[in-house]
Amino acid sequence: MNSFGMKLRFSTFGESHGKALGCLLDGVPAGLNIDEEYIQSELDRRKPGKSKFETARKEADKVEILSGVFEGKSTGTPIAMVIYNTNQKSKDYTNIKDVFRPGHADFTYFHKYGIRDYRGGGRSSARETAARVAAGAIAKLMLQELGITVLSGISEVAGIQAEDFNYEGAKKSVIYALDVNKEEAQKAAILKAKEAHDSVGGVSRVVIKGTPVGLGQPLYYKLDAVLADAMMGINAVKAVEIGDGVLSAKVHGSQNNDQIRANGFESNHSGGILGGISNGEDIVLNVYFKPTPSIFKEQHTVTTANEEVDFSLKGRHDPCVAIRGTVVCESMAALVIADMILLNMGSKMDGVIKYYK
Amino acid sequence: MNSFGMKLRFSTFGESHGKALGCLLDGVPAGLNIDEEYIQSELDRRKPGKSKFETARKEADKVEILSGVFEGKSTGTPIAMVIYNTNQKSKDYTNIKDVFRPGHADFTYFHKYGIRDYRGGGRSSARETAARVAAGAIAKLMLQELGITVLSGISEVAGIQAEDFNYEGAKKSVIYALDVNKEEAQKAAILKAKEAHDSVGGVSRVVIKGTPVGLGQPLYYKLDAVLADAMMGINAVKAVEIGDGVLSAKVHGSQNNDQIRANGFESNHSGGILGGISNGEDIVLNVYFKPTPSIFKEQHTVTTANEEVDFSLKGRHDPCVAIRGTVVCESMAALVIADMILLNMGSKMDGVIKYYK
Amino acid sequence: MNSFGMKLRFSTFGESHGKALGCLLDGVPAGLNIDEEYIQSELDRRKPGKSKFETARKEADKVEILSGVFEGKSTGTPIAMVIYNTNQKSKDYTNIKDVFRPGHADFTYFHKYGIRDYRGGGRSSARETAARVAAGAIAKLMLQELGITVLSGISEVAGIQAEDFNYEGAKKSVIYALDVNKEEAQKAAILKAKEAHDSVGGVSRVVIKGTPVGLGQPLYYKLDAVLADAMMGINAVKAVEIGDGVLSAKVHGSQNNDQIRANGFESNHSGGILGGISNGEDIVLNVYFKPTPSIFKEQHTVTTANEEVDFSLKGRHDPCVAIRGTVVCESMAALVIADMILLNMGSKMDGVIKYYK
Amino acid sequence: MNSFGMKLRFSTFGESHGKALGCLLDGVPAGLNIDEEYIQSELDRRKPGKSKFETARKEADKVEILSGVFEGKSTGTPIAMVIYNTNQKSKDYTNIKDVFRPGHADFTYFHKYGIRDYRGGGRSSARETAARVAAGAIAKLMLQELGITVLSGISEVAGIQAEDFNYEGAKKSVIYALDVNKEEAQKAAILKAKEAHDSVGGVSRVVIKGTPVGLGQPLYYKLDAVLADAMMGINAVKAVEIGDGVLSAKVHGSQNNDQIRANGFESNHSGGILGGISNGEDIVLNVYFKPTPSIFKEQHTVTTANEEVDFSLKGRHDPCVAIRGTVVCESMAALVIADMILLNMGSKMDGVIKYYK
Repeated sequence: MNSFGMKLRFSTFGESHGKALGCLLDGVPAGLNIDEEYIQSELDRRKPGKSKFETARKEADKVEILSGVFEGKSTGTPIAMVIYNTNQKSKDYTNIKDVFRPGHADFTYFHKYGIRDYRGGGRSSARETAARVAAGAIAKLMLQELGITVLSGISEVAGIQAEDFNYEGAKKSVIYALDVNKEEAQKAAILKAKEAHDSVGGVSRVVIKGTPVGLGQPLYYKLDAVLADAMMGINAVKAVEIGDGVLSAKVHGSQNNDQIRANGFESNHSGGILGGISNGEDIVLNVYFKPTPSIFKEQHTVTTANEEVDFSLKGRHDPCVAIRGTVVCESMAALVIADMILLNMGSKMDGVIKYYK
Repeated sequence: MNSFGMKLRFSTFGESHGKALGCLLDGVPAGLNIDEEYIQSELDRRKPGKSKFETARKEADKVEILSGVFEGKSTGTPIAMVIYNTNQKSKDYTNIKDVFRPGHADFTYFHKYGIRDYRGGGRSSARETAARVAAGAIAKLMLQELGITVLSGISEVAGIQAEDFNYEGAKKSVIYALDVNKEEAQKAAILKAKEAHDSVGGVSRVVIKGTPVGLGQPLYYKLDAVLADAMMGINAVKAVEIGDGVLSAKVHGSQNNDQIRANGFESNHSGGILGGISNGEDIVLNVYFKPTPSIFKEQHTVTTANEEVDFSLKGRHDPCVAIRGTVVCESMAALVIADMILLNMGSKMDGVIKYYK
Repeated sequence: MNSFGMKLRFSTFGESHGKALGCLLDGVPAGLNIDEEYIQSELDRRKPGKSKFETARKEADKVEILSGVFEGKSTGTPIAMVIYNTNQKSKDYTNIKDVFRPGHADFTYFHKYGIRDYRGGGRSSARETAARVAAGAIAKLMLQELGITVLSGISEVAGIQAEDFNYEGAKKSVIYALDVNKEEAQKAAILKAKEAHDSVGGVSRVVIKGTPVGLGQPLYYKLDAVLADAMMGINAVKAVEIGDGVLSAKVHGSQNNDQIRANGFESNHSGGILGGISNGEDIVLNVYFKPTPSIFKEQHTVTTANEEVDFSLKGRHDPCVAIRGTVVCESMAALVIADMILLNMGSKMDGVIKYYK
Repeated sequence: MNSFGMKLRFSTFGESHGKALGCLLDGVPAGLNIDEEYIQSELDRRKPGKSKFETARKEADKVEILSGVFEGKSTGTPIAMVIYNTNQKSKDYTNIKDVFRPGHADFTYFHKYGIRDYRGGGRSSARETAARVAAGAIAKLMLQELGITVLSGISEVAGIQAEDFNYEGAKKSVIYALDVNKEEAQKAAILKAKEAHDSVGGVSRVVIKGTPVGLGQPLYYKLDAVLADAMMGINAVKAVEIGDGVLSAKVHGSQNNDQIRANGFESNHSGGILGGISNGEDIVLNVYFKPTPSIFKEQHTVTTANEEVDFSLKGRHDPCVAIRGTVVCESMAALVIADMILLNMGSKMDGVIKYYK
């Protein structure tokens, strides 16, 4: 239940304020160059405390590989990676020990399990996503060998929408903004919310380039369905679109169909997926993040004994969880595509024969 | 790859114009009353040809139970159900034998498998969803015993949005419209598109009432993630929202958080799910269907030999696939909840001890 | 729970005296020639009533393919096969309705599920293995394309052991005897037990020839472990050996190790598997079947109300379940190897790159 | 592929001479007391270097829990445990860098993956079983709460068989001998082989007491099949018996059936499992270990370049791998039973209703 993927299987462990968090990545083909610096650089993109648009919690997020790599190459055995927590301030959380934070998983974990590690949200904290980024980095290394790239950026903050999607530009922006012309307004919206002890929502846009035709296992491990699963499972995500998404439901078939010519599709309303299988076009996703539920404004809530209290949260929190979340979207997308690459091998009998000859 | 669910595992088989389609439902607890009339009545809600808003293909969709039921009760063994195809007109499809229909899975199946059953879309046809409805009906029977109900209806057609959500009303509407005041306009939009040899998109809204707190297995079999997977995997779906969905990304935390009082939550922006686990409120989903890709207007496409042709489809197709699709959304939601009900047993040690005492 | 395999996934349904039994085979590569006559011929090898060494129940065991095959070839979609029951004599079983047969699953099914289809053992009947043979036949067709063959025969009946293993000879023997010199003694033991209203145990020996090196996924989907799972899961099996098996535990390392020369291994004590992975030698299994528990001698038992009774079974039963069981062993072995063939694709990064180039 | 179990899911990582090995245990019910001293005591039973009957490699095998436990109790989130390697002598292995040890997984790993961590066998080393014991200890803690115990001991070494099975006595024996009257002869056989630079095989007998009726999920996750999978997957195991096992195949039904009286079964030839489901009697397994393949006698082998060499191994190895292996058998058995306990919840509809009321 803490695992994802079928052939490239990814499992995570760890709590926000426990000793460590980490992951197991099982199914990486042997012989892949495992560039540890690249993995760390991916973690650095997600790590907290890099700017005023993020939480003040500082974590080095140093990843250590415990297994599965020998002399710089994957061996086909599971790759375990661990990240020790170093900047826990568990005391920050004593005031939430017996209180449910509105919008948070506190309430549901407590009722499901009858016990919860309340420090920083425990397992439900987005801190766990560091492990996803570590695994995603290895998936990206694998995809690189096949000419597949996964890119993303922030297309919308607090309703301010990008009109241009510049993925290279996004890499250089501290809020990973896709549209340089909207970046300042988006930043201002974040800071304004932060000053008001509040938070804002945002949207990540992900594009996957270079996928072969044929990825996705119908009918219940479809590429779009698994991407939706992967994205909706990221903390704070409340909606996922493939291609034109919501808009598709408003238009006519003649507008939405991507007509075909000998050199390819004339448009990409489908977002690169037909019948759950990649068609070779760019795969395009929009991922909608709610505003961080952890805000400092006073709110109504109850204690674990169901007593009503008016509660003001303390601690360190991201004012817009979508920002660092976009890196996690990329990681999950990379893991999904790498899994599908491996699963697709064996779809055709002649491919099987060729492989074993 | 043609299976869904972990403890209640559901697998389907069959093609649009093959001998039969059907499903296997494994993991149904023993001793459940299997009301065959109810199962058939659910299939009748989805079956084609009931009105001018649907395809003209007439199928009785009579379901036959082959196993797993003894003297009217489930025995704990797999329930196999089969629906024989009776109204195939395979000849309708000879003109698409070597042509890819724009917006359709023709292209991707052909390239993935090197072979395709072109008759009516073969396996990629929405006809397969009849099997989902049969399985979903059994899931609903199981949920009924626990006081859980799954409801749905059409909230939007061609951009015309419901302002009121009347699930009981929707049951009586031939287009399952949730808002009686919008129904005529929605119907008119469908017919207008149909007359123009075109199709329209639509939105299904699903609500699940009566779920206990605690459903959903973090972190990679979360309730929202699995619902997103289930819905996105339905033919023609391009976006899924949980609760406020897309809107959540535009607002502030103080607006989006559901504050808590002793007798429950003050609002339900979250759509009944926090941290991937049900919180006891109504679970609310919006499912966005693209317009049926099979339209009669002439379109650009290519043959399997990649020759460009201008192509006009023949055959019988739904002008708005969302209409019958809403029944499928309900079925998949019921299957997900029933699976989660079973998976959740064993979350707490004292629950395990109680079960075995 | 009624499924087996990871990439080639096989699910069965049906009860001994229900309408039908059958299976779903998911993951068959597209483009495989599906020779229906061959599938039927495999079922004919297992079907009951062929000789006096078997049960007198006569079933045609005609298999019908419902999906997944188009113009004689697999399409990559699930292949559903159904076998209708035609020679049920449910009345034979009214006397066991409220009684547990010693050695049978009656007792455990009743207590696990609180309900059981008592007719012919319901789901627990070895009749279900017809579905395994149908699926196994398709696995064999797939293995054939790769030069892999699965053979078997009876090596022991009632303690009378083969000293020679002639797999071609076994095909012609009505009891699938491997050693023609022991066949008459083995037959006599079966008939003697039958006349005494009793039954006898037996051993099936399976050999798989032509497997490439590298099949098996360590450490928890090892080839030997999965074969043991597959064989132990067959009705009446109580022990499984790989290679020298039990004997290995009695000898020294210097006797048991297979030393290696440039042209291969000097011996095959390991039975073709090292560290859970095939080494290219013949894979050898011994599968031990207990005597059929359904005997006509009077035995002590209790009713479902726990009242003691002395009970004499009626009906039609195999005097030595190992005979027809050996065909099932072959089928399961073929399914395991085919699954491993598909799973192994993707073990090496250079293999992945080659596949997609 | 490095995971085991369905509801209690167990994954391991690590190589013999890497930084660390460990495991993830997912699905432990929340609220279980996690007694770390007990877990360590289980590891101590398996750890090497305790006597002259074991390898001389000394490892503290100190286990550290990284997640999933809060204030001494399980929280329902994955429990990660890590054991750092401290006594690697990788230099011992430089002479096998390019050579395949007969009887070892060297050959198959190299060919499957094209790369191998040759130090101490890398992933294929039995050192990995330390992680199984850590996970098994938690499973045992869970079973304890339900009154279920798993016991084992050595019943046979080099063909010298126990005639009495004293599980309490075995706990005190350095070779875990079940029969104190055979212990000295068994020890002498081990030392004699060791002095001859050779090794011996042995047999572990496992008994599980106190299981409820109903464990095991037919037809492809049967209790006996999964136990066979678990045992055959342990390093060096070549045969598995349930109950009378091999003997069952030699006798008559009237001898092998366990007749039933109001207060229970009159015998236990079945080993506590009927139709793949536990019947409430003791579950009995025999697990056959081959002799350690790593011996110091000169043997024929080839290099990775397929050049023939005569090879004498160096290093530190167990003369009888069954001894420490019996602890691993217990651990795997405990993991299987705990998984089945959780899976069985939901078999009956009235149990489901009771759980949620």
